[in-house]
Amino acid sequence: MDERPESTLKAPHTERLAALRGELAARGLDGLIVPLQDEHQGEEVPACSRRLTWLTGFTGSAGLAVVLHERAALFVDGRYTLQVRKETDTALFEPRHLSDEPPARWIAKHLGGERLGYDPWLQTPQSIERFQKAADEAGGELIACKANPIDAAWSDRPAPPDAPIVVHDLKYAGESSAEKRRRLAAALASEEHAAAVITLADSIAWLFNVRGADLVYSPVTLGFAILRNDATADLFVDPEKADAAVRAHLGNEVTVRPRADFPAALDALGGDEAHVLADPGTAPAYVYDRLESAGATVVRGVDPCQLSKACKNDTELEGIRTAHVRDGATLTRLLCWLGRESPKGTITELDVSARSDELRRAGRLCTGLSFPAITGAGPNGAIVHYRVSEATNRTLKAGELFLLDSGGQYLDGTTDVTRTIAVGEPGPEERTRFTLVLKGHIALATARFPEGTSGAQLDMLARQALWQAGLDYDHGSGHGVGSYLNVHEGPQRISKIPNRQALKSGMIVSNEPGYYKEGAYGIRIENLLAVRAAPAPKGAEKDLLEFETLTLAPIDRHLIDAALLDAAERAWVDTYHARVRETLAPHLDSDTADWLTDATAPLEGAP
Amino acid sequence: MDERPESTLKAPHTERLAALRGELAARGLDGLIVPLQDEHQGEEVPACSRRLTWLTGFTGSAGLAVVLHERAALFVDGRYTLQVRKETDTALFEPRHLSDEPPARWIAKHLGGERLGYDPWLQTPQSIERFQKAADEAGGELIACKANPIDAAWSDRPAPPDAPIVVHDLKYAGESSAEKRRRLAAALASEEHAAAVITLADSIAWLFNVRGADLVYSPVTLGFAILRNDATADLFVDPEKADAAVRAHLGNEVTVRPRADFPAALDALGGDEAHVLADPGTAPAYVYDRLESAGATVVRGVDPCQLSKACKNDTELEGIRTAHVRDGATLTRLLCWLGRESPKGTITELDVSARSDELRRAGRLCTGLSFPAITGAGPNGAIVHYRVSEATNRTLKAGELFLLDSGGQYLDGTTDVTRTIAVGEPGPEERTRFTLVLKGHIALATARFPEGTSGAQLDMLARQALWQAGLDYDHGSGHGVGSYLNVHEGPQRISKIPNRQALKSGMIVSNEPGYYKEGAYGIRIENLLAVRAAPAPKGAEKDLLEFETLTLAPIDRHLIDAALLDAAERAWVDTYHARVRETLAPHLDSDTADWLTDATAPLEGAP
Repeated sequence: MDERPESTLKAPHTERLAALRGELAARGLDGLIVPLQDEHQGEEVPACSRRLTWLTGFTGSAGLAVVLHERAALFVDGRYTLQVRKETDTALFEPRHLSDEPPARWIAKHLGGERLGYDPWLQTPQSIERFQKAADEAGGELIACKANPIDAAWSDRPAPPDAPIVVHDLKYAGESSAEKRRRLAAALASEEHAAAVITLADSIAWLFNVRGADLVYSPVTLGFAILRNDATADLFVDPEKADAAVRAHLGNEVTVRPRADFPAALDALGGDEAHVLADPGTAPAYVYDRLESAGATVVRGVDPCQLSKACKNDTELEGIRTAHVRDGATLTRLLCWLGRESPKGTITELDVSARSDELRRAGRLCTGLSFPAITGAGPNGAIVHYRVSEATNRTLKAGELFLLDSGGQYLDGTTDVTRTIAVGEPGPEERTRFTLVLKGHIALATARFPEGTSGAQLDMLARQALWQAGLDYDHGSGHGVGSYLNVHEGPQRISKIPNRQALKSGMIVSNEPGYYKEGAYGIRIENLLAVRAAPAPKGAEKDLLEFETLTLAPIDRHLIDAALLDAAERAWVDTYHARVRETLAPHLDSDTADWLTDATAPLEGAP
Repeated sequence: MDERPESTLKAPHTERLAALRGELAARGLDGLIVPLQDEHQGEEVPACSRRLTWLTGFTGSAGLAVVLHERAALFVDGRYTLQVRKETDTALFEPRHLSDEPPARWIAKHLGGERLGYDPWLQTPQSIERFQKAADEAGGELIACKANPIDAAWSDRPAPPDAPIVVHDLKYAGESSAEKRRRLAAALASEEHAAAVITLADSIAWLFNVRGADLVYSPVTLGFAILRNDATADLFVDPEKADAAVRAHLGNEVTVRPRADFPAALDALGGDEAHVLADPGTAPAYVYDRLESAGATVVRGVDPCQLSKACKNDTELEGIRTAHVRDGATLTRLLCWLGRESPKGTITELDVSARSDELRRAGRLCTGLSFPAITGAGPNGAIVHYRVSEATNRTLKAGELFLLDSGGQYLDGTTDVTRTIAVGEPGPEERTRFTLVLKGHIALATARFPEGTSGAQLDMLARQALWQAGLDYDHGSGHGVGSYLNVHEGPQRISKIPNRQALKSGMIVSNEPGYYKEGAYGIRIENLLAVRAAPAPKGAEKDLLEFETLTLAPIDRHLIDAALLDAAERAWVDTYHARVRETLAPHLDSDTADWLTDATAPLEGAP
């Protein structure tokens, strides 16, 4: 993944690990837990907080290291077992599988009677619970560090991001921050909670109707907030980030305060002996400890913004629909170009990546990408979280599949779409398996289910056709998507991983079954869906929900074996394609429109 | 549910509650948590341990009371909201919904700074965790009682059950206790655990190949065990229960010790500073506390018998198949009698119950029922956990449905089967909804899925047809079943309740979708299934599993609207019925065999 020779790449980590161990010794600690997350537990971490990468060299999106006196381990999941060996000196850090041998079990085995440190800003009460049990089991101690020992050893640590906050206009947000704060404050008051502490960046963005650019793909500003049950709030961010317009937008009920004031504000809540809501799954353990030692009672509960944010209002839904028209037109132009040029054998993954980014960024209301595009040709398509580099770059070749997963951040919505295309003529196995994936996609798209149903209950719909052939895919079938916010958001999810959150009207989820043949090709078909009320059948006793497909882009008909679809499935494809064609045509040049007409012709006429 | 007038029924509870409060005051406590469970956390509780019933009058199968100075609450689930008001004086105990307002939340609200007691023998570390958090939140204290305060106030408490232990023959068990102990001991040794503490009655029965009669429906003996990593074990039961034959069967590696020795044996493990496995979900908190204070390290892990017990060996599976032939013949005789007699309007639910029990008990190798039969005529069928009494007894009437859920304990297997029959001619709504339930039953029966799939992932298969009509049912779609053991056993389950336990070859689960129209009728179709390997399709990359249907009894064809079934579903019904007919016919008198021939005729010929 990186072209520098291994020795250059790995050399500094010996020194860094030694420096860290020196720092730990000076503090009377025998070890340290080094997570990937920062204080906001988001998927993206700014450069100044990439402590795990600084220490180990590992750049994956999930991982955790445990450093002890004599040994250290780096825990990564199945996606990164190869990458970790390329990026990390395994003589320094033993690579371990995050779920097969979880860090807590490793700690229970190896800690002995020693003192293991952790940074309470980077761990949540939930995440620390397992480590506490493991340390108890080992007969050791778990010690909250006053300051992060890595920061002391990290001499050239980058500055924290300082992008200005921007107002997220009511015409996109659909509900004013004051209304949102009052709604949430009333719920706090009814539970007799004095306040809630909010530490997730996307919750803060949603609650105050602000956005930022502290991260590359998620349009948020990094900060903390306290929302009181009278709807007033404190927002803890670098004051430089909030100009006069932002302050005017926030109004009198919201006080902008420096981040450094946050601990003292927690103390003040404690001084009032307040009952304070904080999310044990996302708030720093530091927040819990500080509130409790100051005299507050911490109520464990989900971040109160999460569910409200997930259920989009009509303005947001309308915005997302129009964003999808623009995004679909952009993707269609790209697919048209790919369809014509790729069989020539001159286009590379990097070319597609560059063109996709360029086209999308030029779109109206686009502020950037929602994640780095995945452009996997042939065997690279089978690497689920593939990210092209000069070293891995492949040319698209006739007879191979090409997988493109990309998305944009628009002021009126966030997109995320995957299409798999045949370069030239596809083989019969590829067509069969693509069609099985498509059957799963259609089964999820057309699901009807009672209120109260979770995404976990629906997950198998997307897999059942593959199962019958002895096939499956090793990722979820759908994730929540924000409204000009994170491309992955909770609390809903369509996955076999247990999750009791019911799907609710207005939620947006992806529908993305896939199939991956290692060393050969990858298939994924991803549309975004909005949950909406379904018409009630005669005699119905339950309110039913269904999905509205939001994404508008053709599905490659060359890869569909229509004989494997039943009549209802064929009708779904034709109806979807007609909708794509009719909706996008007015936004396309005539050349692309002609291509789309062919690409969306009814399946009966398919080759 | 009980014929005594309410006043007689409720009077003693005022005194009992007052006596309990006096006992609490004498111990310096302000309250007490009163669960339904005993030390073994089983579904059935012997008379001597029915503390909740003694205190409140409530006889349901799930509930918990919290007694404070000024108020007390009784938490029951949706099944018991009506029953609790009949059985319990709501002036003494406010009825609350177990999941809508969980006890922990109620405690957090009402405890204040007080001292709340609990019996650490009756709570598990997992169950007590929530109460601990709630007490912390309220600013109160949670106190483990040295002896149960109810026992002190309960003057005429029944003696503990003293049924003798019987040997479960190797020809039914299929694996000797020594082999089972060695297999589990090797796993303990490989994890460097010195021993495991076993407190579940069905685990003990399985591990030692013994059965008992301490409970009515579950053929177990109540006791505790310690299994060491050298395959030796201590079994803590009343020594009177184990005669010479049982002791000879247990052999030299197993020491029978009085129950009273159990705490000292935990101390001894602590004296060795041993690592001891105990299940935080099922072992008493007392076991954890005692081990820890004696110096042991308690390792939190699932009872090691659970998964092994759930995966039946070939001998057990063969036993269960033959038990189902006998059970099916018995049920068929009952259904034949019902089909002929019930339309006359002379048979009551109690009559069916008595005849069902009598026929089953007369069966070869039968030692009793696996649960009290549910015999719900008309609206009583809509009460999911209905149990007929003189007060509720209904006559079966033409035009109504009748639901019969029953099962037996045989030395070679445990059965559990539900059939719904039309008394006389059924209405069109009943036929439609029965057929939707049947579609769900068939979808689950014919499922094929990769190794690693949990029952939670499959649950919706049984609901999907109902969902399309806006209908559903409010219970799981399947539970594990023991081998001449508990009719409900874990760790597997087919339910929307999150459960990551994969279905494994040899597991037995029920397949029981239903539909209930309050005040009108109930429908349920239940067969038992065994999980087995499925043939691999060409090109399969995953090992697939499927179900073998074990239960053999006709499904009422009068209730099937064949027009609502597709060809594959019709074929499933006809094939199943042909198998039922051919397998059972040799075991039936000619009259019943003739009836069965009609009852299992192909659907094409259906009226």
